[in-house]
Amino acid sequence: MSADSARVEAAIEGRREAVNDAIAEMLPVTRPERLYEASRYLLDAGGKRLRPAMLLLVAEAVTGVDPLTEDYRAFGPEEIDIMAAAVSVEVIQSFTLIHDDIMDDDDLRRGVPAVHREYDTETAILAGDTLYSKAFECMLQTGAPADRSVRALEKLATTCTKICEGQALDVAFEARGDVTTEEYLDMVEHKTAVLYAAAAAIPAVLLGADEEVVDALCGYGLDVGRAFQIQDDLLDLTTPSERLGKQRGSDLIEGKRTVVTLHARDQGVDVDALLDTADPADVTEADIEAAVGRLEGAGSIDHARTMAREITDRGKRRLEVLPEGEARETLAGIADYLVERDY
Amino acid sequence: MSADSARVEAAIEGRREAVNDAIAEMLPVTRPERLYEASRYLLDAGGKRLRPAMLLLVAEAVTGVDPLTEDYRAFGPEEIDIMAAAVSVEVIQSFTLIHDDIMDDDDLRRGVPAVHREYDTETAILAGDTLYSKAFECMLQTGAPADRSVRALEKLATTCTKICEGQALDVAFEARGDVTTEEYLDMVEHKTAVLYAAAAAIPAVLLGADEEVVDALCGYGLDVGRAFQIQDDLLDLTTPSERLGKQRGSDLIEGKRTVVTLHARDQGVDVDALLDTADPADVTEADIEAAVGRLEGAGSIDHARTMAREITDRGKRRLEVLPEGEARETLAGIADYLVERDY
Repeated sequence: MSADSARVEAAIEGRREAVNDAIAEMLPVTRPERLYEASRYLLDAGGKRLRPAMLLLVAEAVTGVDPLTEDYRAFGPEEIDIMAAAVSVEVIQSFTLIHDDIMDDDDLRRGVPAVHREYDTETAILAGDTLYSKAFECMLQTGAPADRSVRALEKLATTCTKICEGQALDVAFEARGDVTTEEYLDMVEHKTAVLYAAAAAIPAVLLGADEEVVDALCGYGLDVGRAFQIQDDLLDLTTPSERLGKQRGSDLIEGKRTVVTLHARDQGVDVDALLDTADPADVTEADIEAAVGRLEGAGSIDHARTMAREITDRGKRRLEVLPEGEARETLAGIADYLVERDY
Repeated sequence: MSADSARVEAAIEGRREAVNDAIAEMLPVTRPERLYEASRYLLDAGGKRLRPAMLLLVAEAVTGVDPLTEDYRAFGPEEIDIMAAAVSVEVIQSFTLIHDDIMDDDDLRRGVPAVHREYDTETAILAGDTLYSKAFECMLQTGAPADRSVRALEKLATTCTKICEGQALDVAFEARGDVTTEEYLDMVEHKTAVLYAAAAAIPAVLLGADEEVVDALCGYGLDVGRAFQIQDDLLDLTTPSERLGKQRGSDLIEGKRTVVTLHARDQGVDVDALLDTADPADVTEADIEAAVGRLEGAGSIDHARTMAREITDRGKRRLEVLPEGEARETLAGIADYLVERDY
């Protein structure tokens, strides 16, 4: 781990406890208990709190205050509860994971059973629905001037709509062999990147930043999210299963399109024939190694790495609208961190 | 049908086309088409548009204008798009039906297959999630002053949370034999009545009505919703299957608690033994008739009728804060209509 990575991890870590405390306070396990326990289950199971940390850092960067010197529950001269917005974004993330796990019939999440496995599908649907409205309730509790609250809520609502659209596109693409890289990146923007954009732009809106700053932060968040997903796709191919926490090459096995396989396809590689076994259970580590070798040979791994790097650098440049300082440096560091991480 | 009922039906009918047009405009079937088709499927399959009609009538009653004389898309001197709020409430209703049908594994809704049957469970979950955020987007498009928009959104978000809580309570009660009438009514308030309350209170908020008026309308909506549910429970027992559109006595067959069966239980009737057959498919019309006869004998049918009537009358009295006029009369008529309907 580089010194920069260590600094970024410390910055995220340094805000995690405050985020966790706020989640516990804003989402108490109240009647009906089973519903609220299920709603909290995944939130309590862990998670880096990357998006809330980004949101809090943006608040600090926008206002030019030294990190961790302001009270997040009464931030700046207007005493805005910026933490309520951070919780809102994390709660949306949790809601989407719960519903996605039902849709994909995934059994595990964050090392624990998915909510629909630990409870049941009915409770998991309802827990997700509850978190959905709770996220809006949280975003309404920042105490920001009403015109800014309205804009933050617009951002939150359109973000949620886009996440749903992205998930629908992801499902639709599974049945199609002719998805283009452009379509794939559009799907990633909808499904993954918009929530980073919301995390980056909403604090600026709530704190009354200029439109130019809000737009730049939105672009930063989108780029960070895009690069995050490309790196995720790369790690699936290049990281040993035991470090990945799931089967290496699972995207290849499932026939999922990514920037890597779409590039290889365009280079004439028959990507559906890369793993020449009918039964996913028969796929060996050697099969994966050979398939990745062919993708490397086609230049597809390098292509995706270069793309993720370029998107990250573009995202970092967008931060130039912010005052220089530690918070801005850390936001740039987060962008690097997400594309340099090895798991 | 009484003259009053005819007038109420005409008032709802007279607003339905405008509501349908606004739904089509605010929820266009755009990319990804399958997602938006599934999201629109139930909305397009019918429905009385009772809640949007109530919302539009409240707007007219609060401002004291003659019904159907103002443009709902630019209502009053501030030209507020009150129709956007009406669509928002209907969209929330549709989202809850789609997810409820998945949870209850119901096959039919409004005479057509449930969304998870017509499409699939994944698409139905996602269609509901999409409608959820679209409802917030609609509520943000009224053009009302920001402080009122924030209050309307608060009302919408807390309403959604309560609907989820109500659904969770409903599920939890199925496994309990000791539910009290008070608990049942609390569940009904959460699951059903709060959306009527939102439909009645939100236009008043958006149009800047006094707090007293908003509170009274909220109370009116809650009472209308409570009485609506009690009448629903009564109709399940007293209406022939062919008119009901589902098996008469289905609540009894499923062992669902209602005001009727809870009263009977408190009178010493063994309500779980009312239908003495192990297999629901074996239940005959004569079995239902006999069971309803015992509930009548215990005074439970009359008890529920009286309760629904009293709640309705209380709801109507709350309208006295509004200016007299046709819109107010129609709102009182809706309260009567819902408790007098025979299907």
